Amino acid sequence: MSLLVVGTVAFDAIETPFGKTDKIVGGAASYIALASSYFTQDISLVSVVGDDFPQDFMNTLKGHGVDLSGLQIKQGEKSFFWSGRYHNDMNSRDTLDTQLNVLADFDPIVPESSKNCEFLMLGNLMPNVQQKVLSQLTTRPKLIVLDTMNFWMDIAMPELLETIKGIDVLTINDSEARQLSGEYSLVKAAQKILAMGPKALVIKKGEHGALLFNKKEVFFAPALPLEDVFDPTGAGDSFAGGFIGYLAKTKDISFENMKRAIIFGSAMASFTVEKFGTERLIGLSQKDVDERVQEFVDLVQFDISLV
Amino acid sequence: MSLLVVGTVAFDAIETPFGKTDKIVGGAASYIALASSYFTQDISLVSVVGDDFPQDFMNTLKGHGVDLSGLQIKQGEKSFFWSGRYHNDMNSRDTLDTQLNVLADFDPIVPESSKNCEFLMLGNLMPNVQQKVLSQLTTRPKLIVLDTMNFWMDIAMPELLETIKGIDVLTINDSEARQLSGEYSLVKAAQKILAMGPKALVIKKGEHGALLFNKKEVFFAPALPLEDVFDPTGAGDSFAGGFIGYLAKTKDISFENMKRAIIFGSAMASFTVEKFGTERLIGLSQKDVDERVQEFVDLVQFDISLV
Repeated sequence: MSLLVVGTVAFDAIETPFGKTDKIVGGAASYIALASSYFTQDISLVSVVGDDFPQDFMNTLKGHGVDLSGLQIKQGEKSFFWSGRYHNDMNSRDTLDTQLNVLADFDPIVPESSKNCEFLMLGNLMPNVQQKVLSQLTTRPKLIVLDTMNFWMDIAMPELLETIKGIDVLTINDSEARQLSGEYSLVKAAQKILAMGPKALVIKKGEHGALLFNKKEVFFAPALPLEDVFDPTGAGDSFAGGFIGYLAKTKDISFENMKRAIIFGSAMASFTVEKFGTERLIGLSQKDVDERVQEFVDLVQFDISLV
Repeated sequence: MSLLVVGTVAFDAIETPFGKTDKIVGGAASYIALASSYFTQDISLVSVVGDDFPQDFMNTLKGHGVDLSGLQIKQGEKSFFWSGRYHNDMNSRDTLDTQLNVLADFDPIVPESSKNCEFLMLGNLMPNVQQKVLSQLTTRPKLIVLDTMNFWMDIAMPELLETIKGIDVLTINDSEARQLSGEYSLVKAAQKILAMGPKALVIKKGEHGALLFNKKEVFFAPALPLEDVFDPTGAGDSFAGGFIGYLAKTKDISFENMKRAIIFGSAMASFTVEKFGTERLIGLSQKDVDERVQEFVDLVQFDISLV
């Protein structure tokens, strides 16, 4: 397998200023797998759900070329459930309810066929669970990307630090970068975090775009100014999916190519926020993706010749 | 005269998380004139100060090629004074003290030699005062750029709306764009504001960059990620100065050239925030400016060929 995606497959209930949903399908791995499927069809997913999870959505994932042999279905148990309410600025939210259910004792099992994956996307999960995935691999992937969140910094910082030591790219948001580094300046934060192990760092700033750092270079990609951001849920995961999907497709992990991957990731995130849940990520055409990427090119391109 | 700059020349006292200043020189027109002086030396300034204002700084402005024949010096009166404290995020601030002094009855007088200026930068002032400047011009400038703020939206909205009807480019920040339009989405806000008269709109987002809109196009320029933002005072005015200075130099007011102007404006703002007050804007070399602009080019340039 080329790309292994690990993360939650779950239910969400979402309130935004534009409306609210009942339980709909979500989870980091769902968004990552769908977004990456526009770049590679050689994707395997490792996750866990209960017997309440809809077969329809599993069929949708399969239809997008995602191998579900690593998706555990726990009979008699319930899928992970998260419920949240976004504030008017759409950048902050309150968690209303979290029911871990099957996630409480999730023991990821990497299928034999994925133990030599070339690209690994570790979606946001308990750091120890992310570690368990790493320990099952028979060869070191060409690229390991890990997403995490403030919650694990609060309750499992030593495990998180241990886990990110050996990865290639860490993706976190701006406040998480500040929390992890203790630095307010994102430039200083990035250098401290890169000293913890990762070779590159992506700082996601939501509607304010994303920064890519390595020890010597920095790249900035804007978010697309949209008429309406309908539901930000899954935007960061869609970004990660587009990012690693593009890298898996091109098999080029240079900083120059990561810049392009950031643009493709940003494009996938810009689709996700246009509708509730995963809806907008299903059944896009290559033309849709290309046109969206062209909007990013148009948005930032300028021509300055310094004399 | 090619470029006429109108705005405050004043004293500030500033507190940031990095330190505090006594009364130092500031004011919108000071920053605008200094920033634009790196692009054109054909600049005239209209403003008012008291007899407490330091001759030294006037000499500095003159040294930067700024004609001060439109700077009124009111004997026996005091210069405008503003004092503020920035919060830790450096994006928000509290006003601690405002003493209008000479600004209370400022009656701008445009020198004869500037009544046919080609480029006009109306810095943030009471809309009626901005109007008084416009009414003294004998020919319509090639480009009128106007900066304003939420304060005038609160207390003088009808006058502000009347003033911006006839201008070319409005520069405001994101929360002001939302206030002026009543729209949360900046894309929707921009279209509503462009329907009020301006041909182009710049939305300044501080550390998150700036957006340029006309009725058909949008361009985004990032802010440079800096190790430290020392003092944001004057960043927006420095941006405006670089923007209109570059346009006055090139005499090209197309959208394509405004994109370049935004990058030069962003570069000038990135200098300003590195030190307190106007200090960093004084005595830069062409090489300093070019290298800084190159950092912006490097920050956002990527190469995607869609096939």
